[in-house]
Amino acid sequence: MATTQGQVITCKAAVAWEANKPLSIEDVQVAPPQAGEVRIKILFTALCHTDAYTWSGKDPEGLFPCILGHEAAGIVESVGEGVTEVQPGDHVIPCYQAECRECKFCKSGKTNLCGKVRGATGVGVMMNDRKSRFSINGKPIYHFMGTSTFSQYTVVHDVSVAKIDPQAPLEKVCLLGCGVPTGLGAVWNTAKVEPGSTVAVFGLGTVGLAVAEGAKAAGASRIIGVDIDSKKFDIAKKFGATEFVNPKDHDKPIQQVLIDLTDGGVDYSFECIGNVSVMRAALECCHKGWGTSVIVGVAASGQEISTRPFQLVTGRVWKGTAFGGFKSRSQVPWLVDKYMKKEIKVDEYITHTMTLGDINEAFDLMHEGGCLRCVLEMHA
Amino acid sequence: MATTQGQVITCKAAVAWEANKPLSIEDVQVAPPQAGEVRIKILFTALCHTDAYTWSGKDPEGLFPCILGHEAAGIVESVGEGVTEVQPGDHVIPCYQAECRECKFCKSGKTNLCGKVRGATGVGVMMNDRKSRFSINGKPIYHFMGTSTFSQYTVVHDVSVAKIDPQAPLEKVCLLGCGVPTGLGAVWNTAKVEPGSTVAVFGLGTVGLAVAEGAKAAGASRIIGVDIDSKKFDIAKKFGATEFVNPKDHDKPIQQVLIDLTDGGVDYSFECIGNVSVMRAALECCHKGWGTSVIVGVAASGQEISTRPFQLVTGRVWKGTAFGGFKSRSQVPWLVDKYMKKEIKVDEYITHTMTLGDINEAFDLMHEGGCLRCVLEMHA
Repeated sequence: MATTQGQVITCKAAVAWEANKPLSIEDVQVAPPQAGEVRIKILFTALCHTDAYTWSGKDPEGLFPCILGHEAAGIVESVGEGVTEVQPGDHVIPCYQAECRECKFCKSGKTNLCGKVRGATGVGVMMNDRKSRFSINGKPIYHFMGTSTFSQYTVVHDVSVAKIDPQAPLEKVCLLGCGVPTGLGAVWNTAKVEPGSTVAVFGLGTVGLAVAEGAKAAGASRIIGVDIDSKKFDIAKKFGATEFVNPKDHDKPIQQVLIDLTDGGVDYSFECIGNVSVMRAALECCHKGWGTSVIVGVAASGQEISTRPFQLVTGRVWKGTAFGGFKSRSQVPWLVDKYMKKEIKVDEYITHTMTLGDINEAFDLMHEGGCLRCVLEMHA
Repeated sequence: MATTQGQVITCKAAVAWEANKPLSIEDVQVAPPQAGEVRIKILFTALCHTDAYTWSGKDPEGLFPCILGHEAAGIVESVGEGVTEVQPGDHVIPCYQAECRECKFCKSGKTNLCGKVRGATGVGVMMNDRKSRFSINGKPIYHFMGTSTFSQYTVVHDVSVAKIDPQAPLEKVCLLGCGVPTGLGAVWNTAKVEPGSTVAVFGLGTVGLAVAEGAKAAGASRIIGVDIDSKKFDIAKKFGATEFVNPKDHDKPIQQVLIDLTDGGVDYSFECIGNVSVMRAALECCHKGWGTSVIVGVAASGQEISTRPFQLVTGRVWKGTAFGGFKSRSQVPWLVDKYMKKEIKVDEYITHTMTLGDINEAFDLMHEGGCLRCVLEMHA
């Protein structure tokens, strides 16, 4: 790796030149890491709906051209000045949610939402010089979520790198960069589901399945999967769902169906779709007095949630979660260890494996019901 | 008291014959308590905005004719069959929020919202025979909130009676039947404010002042009172408010004013008005990552709260409270004891004292800025 250290690396990346146009595999120049930065050779990346959302152009903060991708694993190629916690050769997962351990968020003990690099990652650049490390023939290409994993090499802030067990299979644990932790953590960290609880999960994609898995691990006695695609129930059972409700099978509003099914409502509900109407149903299906609903899905920009305040005055609690409340650098390695000890599933979420060159086809697949996670091999 | 036991009592009560018409002082027949019921001689009652709301006709569950009132104190006159926890002569506070200690709500350990008698009190009758104990010349008059304290005698369910220290001055502790516990409990039970917290209180009426008092007792370092009437700040200071913001003094939305004032937002906010726009502002002025907003005010029927789900996904929590989360029979006596030990204020909320005959004038006063609580002497 010494041969590339300090040099610009030219490699393949999938570039989103503009919203809603096919991604284009390009030769991209990746500058060396500056102070506090880490250049990572991405070996495997998965696709997530958040990539598709920004790509679609509906995200008003989306910037083009950019390199998307935020659920990946790789090996440190080189590090910039002052980087002490990782070194070349370390196996890592880049984390879109940083953890600096110094800002008021990190020190609060109440949240994982580190604020240190957000001002840069939110606008597609690196904090050191407010510029991108990606370019094509001198034209800068924006970073995305501080990760940009749809590139064979990427540069991230050191506070955004989780060093993991080098024995862990990167083609699997790349999933621990987003969807699986989000679902597990929504249950464990945000809702804090207790044994014996009744849980409803709206949306049985990767995140919803991880919620079901997390709820099962937490000892929930009933885990009700809710999805408009009944085909998803078979797989949801493998992740812990004990019952299934398809809103299309009922004339009544889904919140009323669930209230009737549970003698007054569920103890905990999770919205894993990003649909504001479902967010309302998820709140309103909660039990009076204590039911807690957690918004996990990301709604489109400008959309709003609403309900009657009586829902809250009578004891329901409305919360949300980002990356499941996990502190990324501290806890992603812990999740990897749990996977290595077979305490959490990862392999089971991977329904497809392809290569970087297939990325447009992979996105097409993602919108089909049968796809959970598609992992791209980046150097095939 | 033996002379009235088992007999119908004819006494004075303020009857709301129909929505929005002046209350009328009438001779009302109060039937003896049936099994599980308690007849109370009401000595003092205060007025609360919830009475005015139902009286206005805007409450779709309001039933007429009825006897309003739910913040009062009195002495047990007689008890029905099977009543063991109080006896004639006991000093009591009737509680609109019952506590049966047997239902799933009471047993949950998670809420004060006992459900035992709600099916009856919600429709203005007693549970035993689904009828009212009030009548005028044979015409039934509905109960209200299971309390109907605007009568010299009332009948309530035994699960709705808090037995208190007979030394406590009833003309003061009647306030512990609603507004003051609601504010204190919102801070202590629902939000669980920690020492050093920054708190915003929207609306500086009785409930908002009790929130300020509760926050001060909890060790909050900044207590920001928010009201469109700047005259309220002087009194709010006495209850613990340390700063004051009048939204009318600012061009920016009040949530932005508070965010700027607190380096990112408050740790806890409380809406004590019942205005859904203010509820939104109260949520959105909370700090990213951990800010918790509690809805205390009661909004008009049909109104809805809304916000962008991003507010919750980035760590804010939206809750509500009813009677401050206090378990009524268990904890109202404890609040009375705290008052007797001078640990909580009560006298300071009483700005006016009048008699039952003045009740319409008392309601007029309530809508003026200078009035917090008006206490009516019922047998003057």
